[in-house]
Amino acid sequence: MKEGNIDKIGIIGAGGWGTAMSLVLAENGHNIRLWSYVPEITEEINTKRTNSIFLSGAQIPKNITATSDSSEFGECDLLVMATPTQFIRGVLENFETDLSGKYIVNLAKGIERKTLLRVSELMKEAAGVDTDHYCVLSGPSHAEEVAKQMPTTVVTASDNIEFARTVQKIVSTNYFRIYTSSDVTGCEIGGSLKNVIALAAGVIDGLGLGDNTKAALITRGLVEMTRLGTALGAKARTFSGLSGLGDLFVTANSRHSRNRYVGEQIGRGKTLEAVARVMQMVAEGVHTTESVYHLGQKAGVELPITEQTYAILFGNIDPIDAVQQLMNREHKKEWW
Amino acid sequence: MKEGNIDKIGIIGAGGWGTAMSLVLAENGHNIRLWSYVPEITEEINTKRTNSIFLSGAQIPKNITATSDSSEFGECDLLVMATPTQFIRGVLENFETDLSGKYIVNLAKGIERKTLLRVSELMKEAAGVDTDHYCVLSGPSHAEEVAKQMPTTVVTASDNIEFARTVQKIVSTNYFRIYTSSDVTGCEIGGSLKNVIALAAGVIDGLGLGDNTKAALITRGLVEMTRLGTALGAKARTFSGLSGLGDLFVTANSRHSRNRYVGEQIGRGKTLEAVARVMQMVAEGVHTTESVYHLGQKAGVELPITEQTYAILFGNIDPIDAVQQLMNREHKKEWW
Repeated sequence: MKEGNIDKIGIIGAGGWGTAMSLVLAENGHNIRLWSYVPEITEEINTKRTNSIFLSGAQIPKNITATSDSSEFGECDLLVMATPTQFIRGVLENFETDLSGKYIVNLAKGIERKTLLRVSELMKEAAGVDTDHYCVLSGPSHAEEVAKQMPTTVVTASDNIEFARTVQKIVSTNYFRIYTSSDVTGCEIGGSLKNVIALAAGVIDGLGLGDNTKAALITRGLVEMTRLGTALGAKARTFSGLSGLGDLFVTANSRHSRNRYVGEQIGRGKTLEAVARVMQMVAEGVHTTESVYHLGQKAGVELPITEQTYAILFGNIDPIDAVQQLMNREHKKEWW
Repeated sequence: MKEGNIDKIGIIGAGGWGTAMSLVLAENGHNIRLWSYVPEITEEINTKRTNSIFLSGAQIPKNITATSDSSEFGECDLLVMATPTQFIRGVLENFETDLSGKYIVNLAKGIERKTLLRVSELMKEAAGVDTDHYCVLSGPSHAEEVAKQMPTTVVTASDNIEFARTVQKIVSTNYFRIYTSSDVTGCEIGGSLKNVIALAAGVIDGLGLGDNTKAALITRGLVEMTRLGTALGAKARTFSGLSGLGDLFVTANSRHSRNRYVGEQIGRGKTLEAVARVMQMVAEGVHTTESVYHLGQKAGVELPITEQTYAILFGNIDPIDAVQQLMNREHKKEWW
């Protein structure tokens, strides 16, 4: 795909990140069609030029048109997937534009619960998107900060490196810097596991433990992420990049992260049910912990932090005991 | 060196980290001799069992004896080096116990300014410590948190892996977990560069930029650290471990880090002179920025973040311009 072929760009999902991405693309002069399931949201975007529920404070320019009609995307060469991972299959099954043959940039992070599929695999299975037409964009990018044009860096990975380079060219601005990579698996695994480790980091916060402990968790979490990823075919160094460490850093530190928040509440002694009741939904990291736990078992890879997080969430073990278990494992080399 | 050979352990330097390490070793039943240049500090430790200047709140047990007499370390088989890097040569030149033939665990981080030597090289040159007798202990370990027995993890690296394993055994406690490594160069370079990147992270804070920007800096800082380190013979993965990323995470986030603080003040518009005047000393990261800048030039390795940090500190360029320069470099692959 060449830069010149991009006439119109579609974005599937008008949540915070989908909307922020529409602003970046609009800034570069592209005409954007932004899809949301919810007519009230498209109405607000088209008339008031705001998305007060998902990206309050942002002013949405006129080259962005919102719609709830999924048949209107036929003329788009490039589509950005911006719905939560667990909803992707449902959205695709009902989407009235055929996505096979379209170029797709995926923003969603996570692993489908029942199938344990990564998003690239899911898109292929559910919508016939082949790997040559698929690219994942990932990295430390709070939507609110992107909307405020704070300097942000991400990585785009594709089996089709020419496509990744085209995305780099058409999306980059002077506040949104993009690096390219050929490691789709690594970017997808990193973007998923970081939510598990961020949830565990929240537990450390909730227990009132220190910076040393949190740094230990982040670092050993990265080692664990790398171990699973390389077993699944990813490159180790991808996890030390923006889609691994970078995104982990931002999620594990952020007061706004739902995943870290769930962990913090559990560290303070609440049950998962009680936290989910208050949040009115389950954070993605809870699903991902379950998926990654099963993925590790299936691949025969030892994932001590994921296993303890799973036990805290679903096995009712005491978080303090989980920390002690991690600290008192047999002596090891740093990389094994 | 076998575990059974450790009769008495000496610690050279009763700052926060040397004192905290003496607590960890004392907890494991070792007898410790703790050296400080300052008689008032040794006096306070021996009589009041506190070190109020460097580690307030800690209770120092009786198997720790402080002294200012550097001739009293002849019977120690193992010595822990815990003085700031820029003071090591001066301390060693005046130390009245011969350190050649002794086993050394080094806690100091940094690069000697004029010589550009790492601590292992400096110890060899200044005190005849050979690589078989040298080990570096590094990682995310605020002394105050270690003294409070918060769960902490570090790595010990030595060319003599048996020695690293011995240190792992004699120092580990249920709150202080040690991993081993054979990559001395990687641990030393990581422990040094993290102060440069932490200082730059402070600049980001001072400028009021967001989490995305800070995560970008940390991640690209790690890439840069890895690039220099591997050019000097280190293993890439060491930088993604406790002595690289782990320590960087803790330093770049901490409100207590002097290096991050210097950067923050400069980001707010103060000059280096003004900040140094208030702090009554120059933070290690300022020296290290200078050393690493020259090390990069000498090795012919491109270090964009170090170069911009050096320019901010010593060349009076505006921090905002430095950020823009970093954001608008030519498009790249993530790893090059």
